[in-house]
Amino acid sequence: MFKVIQNFFSNKYSDYSDEGATKTMNILHVDSSPRREASHSRKMTAELVASLKQTHSNATVTYRDLGHQPPPFVTEDWQNGVYIPEEQRTPAQVAALEYSDAAIDELLAADIVVIGAPMYNWTVSANLKAWLDQIIRINKTFLADYTGLATGKKVFVVTSRGGGGYSAGESMEHLNFQDPYLKTAFSFTGITDIEFIPVNNTAKGDEAVRESVAGARAMIHTAALSSVA
Amino acid sequence: MFKVIQNFFSNKYSDYSDEGATKTMNILHVDSSPRREASHSRKMTAELVASLKQTHSNATVTYRDLGHQPPPFVTEDWQNGVYIPEEQRTPAQVAALEYSDAAIDELLAADIVVIGAPMYNWTVSANLKAWLDQIIRINKTFLADYTGLATGKKVFVVTSRGGGGYSAGESMEHLNFQDPYLKTAFSFTGITDIEFIPVNNTAKGDEAVRESVAGARAMIHTAALSSVA
Repeated sequence: MFKVIQNFFSNKYSDYSDEGATKTMNILHVDSSPRREASHSRKMTAELVASLKQTHSNATVTYRDLGHQPPPFVTEDWQNGVYIPEEQRTPAQVAALEYSDAAIDELLAADIVVIGAPMYNWTVSANLKAWLDQIIRINKTFLADYTGLATGKKVFVVTSRGGGGYSAGESMEHLNFQDPYLKTAFSFTGITDIEFIPVNNTAKGDEAVRESVAGARAMIHTAALSSVA
Repeated sequence: MFKVIQNFFSNKYSDYSDEGATKTMNILHVDSSPRREASHSRKMTAELVASLKQTHSNATVTYRDLGHQPPPFVTEDWQNGVYIPEEQRTPAQVAALEYSDAAIDELLAADIVVIGAPMYNWTVSANLKAWLDQIIRINKTFLADYTGLATGKKVFVVTSRGGGGYSAGESMEHLNFQDPYLKTAFSFTGITDIEFIPVNNTAKGDEAVRESVAGARAMIHTAALSSVA
């Protein structure tokens, strides 16, 4: 009963604002490039988030900049801490899990997750992997029986790459440990609705970049419109 | 000519010790588990390195503990620095590349690389990925035309996993983004001789662990003997 009341009066627990019919939408925006102005993935995630905000006037945005405030690595205290109930954890274990707790709260609160992911050496960068290692956590985002707990979300991943040809059927597909890996990792948490927006050939000169960015922008335009419930 | 003299008199540049016929062997030992006594991968890499030292009396060992002294993440200064000649780099770029320089020197000096790699969320842990991002570097371990520069090495990877069935033809093979990824990443640097020593089912109880460890020990025994040139 209390939960129903919360659902009805609080934005935090509710799908509906006080105007009744307008859905709130929480966006989690995660960038992982260590570049700033020179980053193609940052530019495109910013454009996607801006488009989503335009089509959803009451969207909230939470931002994580893994490129400049990278996540900690998993430690032994982290590993031991996750398998025991919260109240039995040592202070060191509690501290080791603080980043994970916060990052998971943000993920679970999100309706849409927008991730900027440059390809480093055929897969995600180490800082994005560090974030994944923090958010993929037993009893928080999956259960021991492999039930995913982070369901009902849409994830967009802007992948930026120096080269191209990594899509299904293309010549470099076998070297793409990025899209298939991210699909597998997220599906474990119950997230199965993932859309990739590639910005390929960023190292192949201005013309190639313009073409890639134009393609990404077209996908962003469609994505923002299609996300309107 | 100078190089020939170096080769002849200096251990550092030579394949031969001053006894003439005995080959020196440099081992690079890399652990990535954040666990200490509880780590299966650490136990097995230690046993492999000990076995290699027994069969090679004049082996040298360089040790990197990524689990407790994790590598830095790649930064924008790192990325800009690698594409320009050393003497043109800013002090910030030089500093950003220090870890990479040292880690690559260790890799290039090694005849055998022994890596402990727990599987985290279907692939390498973030700290091992951070090390890979530091050592896979243009003009140092590969050229722009994709020639690998770290040739002539043997890599052993002890992979530890809570479960099993990740080998070719087994039920979880499609979720193994660890062995195939490491093969791809290392091959880019010219390292193609990689042997995996799995320690599976570490979360499946003592009996399962004993069986996995026995299998790993048999592989270690064969590996140490076969590495005798």
